[in-house]
Amino acid sequence: MKLWEKGNTLDSIVEDYTVDNDCILDRKLIEYDCTASISHAKTLYKSGIITITEADDLETALKEIIQLSKTGEFIILKEDEDCHTAIEKYLVEKLGAAGRKIHTARSRNDQVLTALRLFYIDEINKCNDLAQDYISGLKDLVTRYGSIKFPGYTHTRKAMPSSVQLWAGAYIDSMQDNIEFLDSAKDMIDRSPAGTGAGYGIPIDIDNEYTKELLGFKRIHHNPLHAQLSRGKYEMFMLHCLKQIMFDINRLASDLIFYSIPEIGYIILPDELCTGSSIMPQKKNPDLLELMRGYYHVVNSLELRVNTVSSNLLSGYNRDIQLTKEPVMRGFEISQKSLRISGHLLEKLIVDENRCDEAMTDEIFAAEKAYKLVLNGVPFREAYRMIAEGCTNSK
Amino acid sequence: MKLWEKGNTLDSIVEDYTVDNDCILDRKLIEYDCTASISHAKTLYKSGIITITEADDLETALKEIIQLSKTGEFIILKEDEDCHTAIEKYLVEKLGAAGRKIHTARSRNDQVLTALRLFYIDEINKCNDLAQDYISGLKDLVTRYGSIKFPGYTHTRKAMPSSVQLWAGAYIDSMQDNIEFLDSAKDMIDRSPAGTGAGYGIPIDIDNEYTKELLGFKRIHHNPLHAQLSRGKYEMFMLHCLKQIMFDINRLASDLIFYSIPEIGYIILPDELCTGSSIMPQKKNPDLLELMRGYYHVVNSLELRVNTVSSNLLSGYNRDIQLTKEPVMRGFEISQKSLRISGHLLEKLIVDENRCDEAMTDEIFAAEKAYKLVLNGVPFREAYRMIAEGCTNSK
Amino acid sequence: MKLWEKGNTLDSIVEDYTVDNDCILDRKLIEYDCTASISHAKTLYKSGIITITEADDLETALKEIIQLSKTGEFIILKEDEDCHTAIEKYLVEKLGAAGRKIHTARSRNDQVLTALRLFYIDEINKCNDLAQDYISGLKDLVTRYGSIKFPGYTHTRKAMPSSVQLWAGAYIDSMQDNIEFLDSAKDMIDRSPAGTGAGYGIPIDIDNEYTKELLGFKRIHHNPLHAQLSRGKYEMFMLHCLKQIMFDINRLASDLIFYSIPEIGYIILPDELCTGSSIMPQKKNPDLLELMRGYYHVVNSLELRVNTVSSNLLSGYNRDIQLTKEPVMRGFEISQKSLRISGHLLEKLIVDENRCDEAMTDEIFAAEKAYKLVLNGVPFREAYRMIAEGCTNSK
Amino acid sequence: MKLWEKGNTLDSIVEDYTVDNDCILDRKLIEYDCTASISHAKTLYKSGIITITEADDLETALKEIIQLSKTGEFIILKEDEDCHTAIEKYLVEKLGAAGRKIHTARSRNDQVLTALRLFYIDEINKCNDLAQDYISGLKDLVTRYGSIKFPGYTHTRKAMPSSVQLWAGAYIDSMQDNIEFLDSAKDMIDRSPAGTGAGYGIPIDIDNEYTKELLGFKRIHHNPLHAQLSRGKYEMFMLHCLKQIMFDINRLASDLIFYSIPEIGYIILPDELCTGSSIMPQKKNPDLLELMRGYYHVVNSLELRVNTVSSNLLSGYNRDIQLTKEPVMRGFEISQKSLRISGHLLEKLIVDENRCDEAMTDEIFAAEKAYKLVLNGVPFREAYRMIAEGCTNSK
Repeated sequence: MKLWEKGNTLDSIVEDYTVDNDCILDRKLIEYDCTASISHAKTLYKSGIITITEADDLETALKEIIQLSKTGEFIILKEDEDCHTAIEKYLVEKLGAAGRKIHTARSRNDQVLTALRLFYIDEINKCNDLAQDYISGLKDLVTRYGSIKFPGYTHTRKAMPSSVQLWAGAYIDSMQDNIEFLDSAKDMIDRSPAGTGAGYGIPIDIDNEYTKELLGFKRIHHNPLHAQLSRGKYEMFMLHCLKQIMFDINRLASDLIFYSIPEIGYIILPDELCTGSSIMPQKKNPDLLELMRGYYHVVNSLELRVNTVSSNLLSGYNRDIQLTKEPVMRGFEISQKSLRISGHLLEKLIVDENRCDEAMTDEIFAAEKAYKLVLNGVPFREAYRMIAEGCTNSK
Repeated sequence: MKLWEKGNTLDSIVEDYTVDNDCILDRKLIEYDCTASISHAKTLYKSGIITITEADDLETALKEIIQLSKTGEFIILKEDEDCHTAIEKYLVEKLGAAGRKIHTARSRNDQVLTALRLFYIDEINKCNDLAQDYISGLKDLVTRYGSIKFPGYTHTRKAMPSSVQLWAGAYIDSMQDNIEFLDSAKDMIDRSPAGTGAGYGIPIDIDNEYTKELLGFKRIHHNPLHAQLSRGKYEMFMLHCLKQIMFDINRLASDLIFYSIPEIGYIILPDELCTGSSIMPQKKNPDLLELMRGYYHVVNSLELRVNTVSSNLLSGYNRDIQLTKEPVMRGFEISQKSLRISGHLLEKLIVDENRCDEAMTDEIFAAEKAYKLVLNGVPFREAYRMIAEGCTNSK
Repeated sequence: MKLWEKGNTLDSIVEDYTVDNDCILDRKLIEYDCTASISHAKTLYKSGIITITEADDLETALKEIIQLSKTGEFIILKEDEDCHTAIEKYLVEKLGAAGRKIHTARSRNDQVLTALRLFYIDEINKCNDLAQDYISGLKDLVTRYGSIKFPGYTHTRKAMPSSVQLWAGAYIDSMQDNIEFLDSAKDMIDRSPAGTGAGYGIPIDIDNEYTKELLGFKRIHHNPLHAQLSRGKYEMFMLHCLKQIMFDINRLASDLIFYSIPEIGYIILPDELCTGSSIMPQKKNPDLLELMRGYYHVVNSLELRVNTVSSNLLSGYNRDIQLTKEPVMRGFEISQKSLRISGHLLEKLIVDENRCDEAMTDEIFAAEKAYKLVLNGVPFREAYRMIAEGCTNSK
Repeated sequence: MKLWEKGNTLDSIVEDYTVDNDCILDRKLIEYDCTASISHAKTLYKSGIITITEADDLETALKEIIQLSKTGEFIILKEDEDCHTAIEKYLVEKLGAAGRKIHTARSRNDQVLTALRLFYIDEINKCNDLAQDYISGLKDLVTRYGSIKFPGYTHTRKAMPSSVQLWAGAYIDSMQDNIEFLDSAKDMIDRSPAGTGAGYGIPIDIDNEYTKELLGFKRIHHNPLHAQLSRGKYEMFMLHCLKQIMFDINRLASDLIFYSIPEIGYIILPDELCTGSSIMPQKKNPDLLELMRGYYHVVNSLELRVNTVSSNLLSGYNRDIQLTKEPVMRGFEISQKSLRISGHLLEKLIVDENRCDEAMTDEIFAAEKAYKLVLNGVPFREAYRMIAEGCTNSK
């Protein structure tokens, strides 16, 4: 029975369409929803709505669910719609009246928001850790190969001298930027939506500050409608941060695909990172790098989904927003596995010093030569044209 | 063992990242790949590469796989990567040398392309049928309620008289447009990629025309590199067609959400199509319609994924393209279920004739009044200003 | 004075925001709007609403406007909002009552739709011609260099032998596909919206079929609301077709950027197509190719704009749709100039036969070698593994 | 003559394609580029590369250009490509050798980055101010009408009691979030790229810290390649922040379009904010609100353009990136004018207290009634079902 059922039954084809894969996605939220409900029960007790025994029983039962969830034994059926209903059903079956009281002073809207926030904060923390590992991977690469020089490119053409240290350093600084983005996101979303109901508050007094303290949130949504409006906004922002991470990985992969072309050869990809062809026996393909490159676009499209699903809507909850849960979850999953594989890859990369040396051909020192003339007093633009002429003639 | 394995083993973390959910997605392709392989075996026999016994044995074994797949008994393991490997492995285990010969004169690239084409053509046909059902639903609605008049809107404001017939007729014509789009897509993709190898053909003679005939394709890709290039292009186009379908459903849902607001009330949604609120006992919510509206954006984001994953790449297959399989499959799935639910919904819609009548208020006849003056010889722009003045004064 | 003005005045800041750059964009539509109005005047005469003299006067005045527009002398002021108002104002000033009658039996909605359709058909025709030129450019390239062999790539790695003919042929076939897309688009949009009013028809009898004949449209929008709904749909589709064209150009440019890297060298870009660097005297950069590659994304984002601006809206015209005019216009402009420059580029490309020859190294014949074994009776998968072993040992 | 010209000339058709509208867009950058060059000249003097007289002359000439730019007298020709070339040309013509020295120790790449950063910081500041004005507008609305109650909606259906204060408060809090986003963006981009050259530094010693101090940047890009990589990343982020602003305006407009439908009537839009129809004399249309709603999608598509133009590229500058300048500029322009018009609109909004009162119908108190039972000891879920039954029966 759904939280909102009143006798009539939903068409089964409509149920299929509206529930879709929510009962699967929600497996990730069970633990967070139980954690939030434990705090909610404590607030209900503090506000005199349930007894201490009821609060304790609820806590015990919710912890049971957490345990069941960890071993995969807590099942969300399609007719339950989502984890929130399955959990309330369990509590009612187990505890009777206490179970029927747990939904006092909240709506499924703020319940979902609260569970999602707790989940998102954990996911951001995981990204942060993986971003640090990725930076370590780059630093190790610098330790191993940092001093090797190879050509820096602009316009996919050799430009000026670069080095492994310079190249890896750019990606380190850029991932530091991403960590700043993640910090902003965490700071932004770290506020409690508990008690905001369906966007218009709860018609009885309830100590939202207490729930916030229990759950460890930094701030609170004082305006309940703002809590609703913030869902799309914060999800867009989190996906943006993930996109920034994937943007770096996209560029890193693009560089490595190019550097490891046999004709270029600055980098060697070890065999265990490469795949082959079903028809060409000689092939050693960088599929891994290509997927790292491609996943950027997946995350980009996931953000777009949230951006536009959430648009042109009236204030207050609309069911369209249901469709933003999967893209955020999937965005975290892709970004985390891409960071993890990037770290793994950086550990195994081999820089081919000989090929790098050979590639440091004369023309990439042209700017340097112009600057020697500058130090002898030739205005830069003249020096430039003098060297340019030399380059053209020697071709 | 993968098709391309030569001794060394792929890192398991790399395997996880590169295979991802392909072994699940590919369940939909098993049948199509077997069908294509049966024809391929016949062509190999015709070209003298395998014996008639080998061809027959391959056909029998491939038909077994099709049967196993129908009952869910044909399993694709993660270490198989995809259905193509799992099928070849089955054939080798069952038939020995004949199995090791099936991959002659093809590459996994053209094998995948061929199976996908067959699959896509079937999916387009399903969409076509469902689009016809949707049109029937609209026609029935016209039969039941067509003559009822209600206000037509522009700018979300009452404009001029409309009717159920006019309204439903627009959606009928628009779905006819979508059927034209689907026909173009089918016509475009209906060509055989078999024999194009990895984009550079096959180094032995093989009768691609024969395979094409056996598989029932209308055209053939004469240029093997074009077959490769066409993958992204045709997938973009199919998703575009699906987006056009979802665009109509998005608009239909937007109209119905508005028409069924109690304050407006032209349409009544039967209870079994509505859901409720966990906190507000009175609520009857159009979640179904909101999801129909929202899924447009999902399909739109799926198309975007294909558009950009496929860009800025060098000619010939790149593994990034792997990431376009899921969005196309998901696009078909969403569009088909949305068409199906729309048909179901249209059957159950109730038009509230009284509320429609009441809403036909005076101001929506203003243009009509101006035209009465026009018929009496007043230039339109003057007639317009005379009536406008009346509207303003009577406010 | 605006067409809809009734005394009160629009805030100037609101006028700025709502008119924006419409008065500039609309310059491209003046001619088409006049053409449509000439036919409209004839229909008004045929329907007895205006006299033959009035119809003739209107035609003369409208032709004057066309002339003025060609020399840039017909100005659309910001307070006119758009070309339609400016034209009606001109007619009223010049002709008095006849001018005040031209807007009989139409709304600005169907007037805009009609002018846009005529404009779009012309633009599609231009694209078609340019696509043919591009194909000629490729065919000439084949004439000059077709027989030269160079390595085909997969995964940005040498794969199997290719040739200029094979490579260029893929792009020829692909542009043929685009021409099919353009034909579908033209066929789809080639229907007259004249007489559909604001989506709810016109409250007097008017011979829409006659206008359609005069304007040379193939079909007619029988359902006026469908005409409205079709705007977003057809604009999305046209941009999709342009995106398909740009997709090919994106790939072509990606190939040429790579083929012309000095380390690869299959292609030489003549100096007059290259730019330099402000600091590095030696540089010869393929900026042109990079912009060709980048513009794909611009057109892609323009389509996205139309897709989502047009979503989640109620039936009937909404002003949001105003924002889809610029992206379609800009999409045509970019695609046409990109086709034009591609043709120019193809004419000037130089293939470096020596570098191509040198690049045909041993490993790209591995599949060929495996097939020699196959012809001697070795099952393909065994032959593959035998050759693969050889490749690995010789490394 | 372009900065990089060496004798040969660029094809004029290529010039058209590559320069496009840069010479127009760059008008906005002249002042910032001159400011940066004044500081650069001081650093060149400090480093002993130019004399104090040369530095002074350069400063004087650059200030002249700033003055000319303010009055529109500084023209960038198409053959100049961009403002940077036009400015250097002016300096060379005016000062001779000093002019030819200004480009010492920089590349056009870091020059562009520096000018853009200064420009972007100014634009962010403007957005910040306008966001504050918007908040003031909402606060004034609360002062005028805050205590008026009207129904809060979920799923476009009346849900629970809301008020002008609650509603406006949500938008205030949400714009505060946007200001936090803008602050993050400003903090992120506030670092000096001067001296990073083309991504590989400058081959002579130059005091980048001094330039940074003179220009007032908080941080510096220590890694020159990071400065290059950051362009796409920071532009994506700024557009994201602008999208967040537009997202709020999209929602605000959606609410107001709905609240001001005559059938709903909570809000009255004054006549001077409305437009009319060319055919229907009675119409009063919220075009302004519809465009505010629609522009969200424009900004969204502009961000997408930057996201994907910048992807799948090799490290170091690529000309594709040129195409990200316009979308960022346009994003700022649209967001600023939309904030401005929103403030204007909020000032003029009229809340219709009577219509609001009338709309506070019985059913929106259903949750309240359930909570009265809860306070009498009925478990919430039972209370909910008791009230739900009442709602259904009374229908």
